[in-house]
Amino acid sequence: MAHNQLDWIAVDWGTSNLRVWLFAAENRLIAHAGSDRGMGQLVPDQFEPALLDLIGGYLPAGRVTPVICCGMVGARQGWVEAPYASTPCAPPTALEAIAPAVADPRLDVRILPGVKQDHPADVMRGEETQIAGYLSANPGYDGVLCLPGTHTKWAQISAGQITGFQTFMTGELFSLLLKHSVLRHSLTDKGWEDAAFGNAVGDAMSAPEKLSARLFSIRAEGLLHGVPSATLRARLSGCLIGLELAAARRFWQGPKIMIIGDGALSAHYARALSLQGITAGLTGVEKLTLAGLTAAYTNLKETNT
Amino acid sequence: MAHNQLDWIAVDWGTSNLRVWLFAAENRLIAHAGSDRGMGQLVPDQFEPALLDLIGGYLPAGRVTPVICCGMVGARQGWVEAPYASTPCAPPTALEAIAPAVADPRLDVRILPGVKQDHPADVMRGEETQIAGYLSANPGYDGVLCLPGTHTKWAQISAGQITGFQTFMTGELFSLLLKHSVLRHSLTDKGWEDAAFGNAVGDAMSAPEKLSARLFSIRAEGLLHGVPSATLRARLSGCLIGLELAAARRFWQGPKIMIIGDGALSAHYARALSLQGITAGLTGVEKLTLAGLTAAYTNLKETNT
Repeated sequence: MAHNQLDWIAVDWGTSNLRVWLFAAENRLIAHAGSDRGMGQLVPDQFEPALLDLIGGYLPAGRVTPVICCGMVGARQGWVEAPYASTPCAPPTALEAIAPAVADPRLDVRILPGVKQDHPADVMRGEETQIAGYLSANPGYDGVLCLPGTHTKWAQISAGQITGFQTFMTGELFSLLLKHSVLRHSLTDKGWEDAAFGNAVGDAMSAPEKLSARLFSIRAEGLLHGVPSATLRARLSGCLIGLELAAARRFWQGPKIMIIGDGALSAHYARALSLQGITAGLTGVEKLTLAGLTAAYTNLKETNT
Repeated sequence: MAHNQLDWIAVDWGTSNLRVWLFAAENRLIAHAGSDRGMGQLVPDQFEPALLDLIGGYLPAGRVTPVICCGMVGARQGWVEAPYASTPCAPPTALEAIAPAVADPRLDVRILPGVKQDHPADVMRGEETQIAGYLSANPGYDGVLCLPGTHTKWAQISAGQITGFQTFMTGELFSLLLKHSVLRHSLTDKGWEDAAFGNAVGDAMSAPEKLSARLFSIRAEGLLHGVPSATLRARLSGCLIGLELAAARRFWQGPKIMIIGDGALSAHYARALSLQGITAGLTGVEKLTLAGLTAAYTNLKETNT
């Protein structure tokens, strides 16, 4: 049923998932919804129907509702390409957003660009909106933001700008090894042993070159010595996060660091940093994504009036 | 049709493939065959039928033909477990082989054990037979054998024994990243650029901790700068082989090193070593596997007479 108080819609559209939040005036949340229709499974003319499946019933007739999107929806393989902003830059605003052609007259869709760094080559799509959300509440922040995930980002922030960043494939490596490698036979449960994690972080930082030997030793320790899955799983995670910390030193050795993330993964990053004597703040992702999309919407509204 | 001159059968039975060679007296090759019925897809009572599919037609009635097997067929999840020999040890002989129960009276199957190292934990199954093959032609070899593959092994050989070894998951990492990771979008053809490989080996050896950042940069370089797939593929391989060489230094800094392997992968190892000023010999796998199985058969025959 159409919702007459609907003011605008926030959309986080990643590779695997689509999530929407519907707001009334003054950013009062009316409803939220999600589906698995991520950008990865859609061709361009399937985006509008996938979006309407979730929000079509709410859209009032006879007027246009702004829909602000971030994430992989703006990639070259997405709905329409929203060209990257280049570092150093502030997180892109709604002014830089791209409006795909839509068939439904009730929709005004805007897709926020990602951010690129030319040298060394690096890209983000979605994280820049979390960064915008963090900066909307902390406009003078000068320090590092760490965004753990499939592709963990470390971003240097100064004077409202992303001055540089670096991506690590740590999360994707963990998931590939867990699901597809020979290690899957040894990592059969979801347990966790904190001491094994800590030791593996230390080992990886002091001898990072041993990674691929260490990976096989996880299999061999399980086979020969019956080391439990919980220990081996924590060791695998520690191996990979330790390797990342060894290379990300220039980011976390500064005075200020905040982790933007949820759940166990972010807690592991915080713990790995604490073992280096570093205390990092921790804040959730969804709240910041919504703050970033809200800032973009506010900005769009101000421009239009 | 049964082959009355059949003397014995050599079998290399790995995780993914089954290969057999049929010999007459004096190791004259009569026939060879192969199938995709590797140990990974079989439960114990399927091994004998899978073997008979390939060799059943050749087996003469009224007598027993020896079948000497190496590889993952002897793993815990294989036909029957052939417990590991422990380093330091010579490659296991037929005396240590395990005979699974068989229904067909024409078969005398022997499965050669693998080799384990307790500390640091490590295992091999199949490579020990290649090593036995190498030692049968070079009994006094004192040096290192490098066996590139999904799980590359570096083995120290002295006085006919494997004194220690280390496994690297380099090949499996390459294959996982190529097939299942985000890099698959950037690595779309089979091309190769030798200079990119060499540079990546050097980078990986001098800063091994940067691995997971380098992996993502392969994706970003493809996206932002249109770097060709051939360059990126060679770079990925160089990244991973360089990381391995950085950790395997104690093996290749000795005076003698021989690579046992086929095709492009072994050539890449030889090239990466040559960039460190190391000249390694190169010899093919199949010849050595057969030499190792032949040595085991000879040994069995001598014991039985």
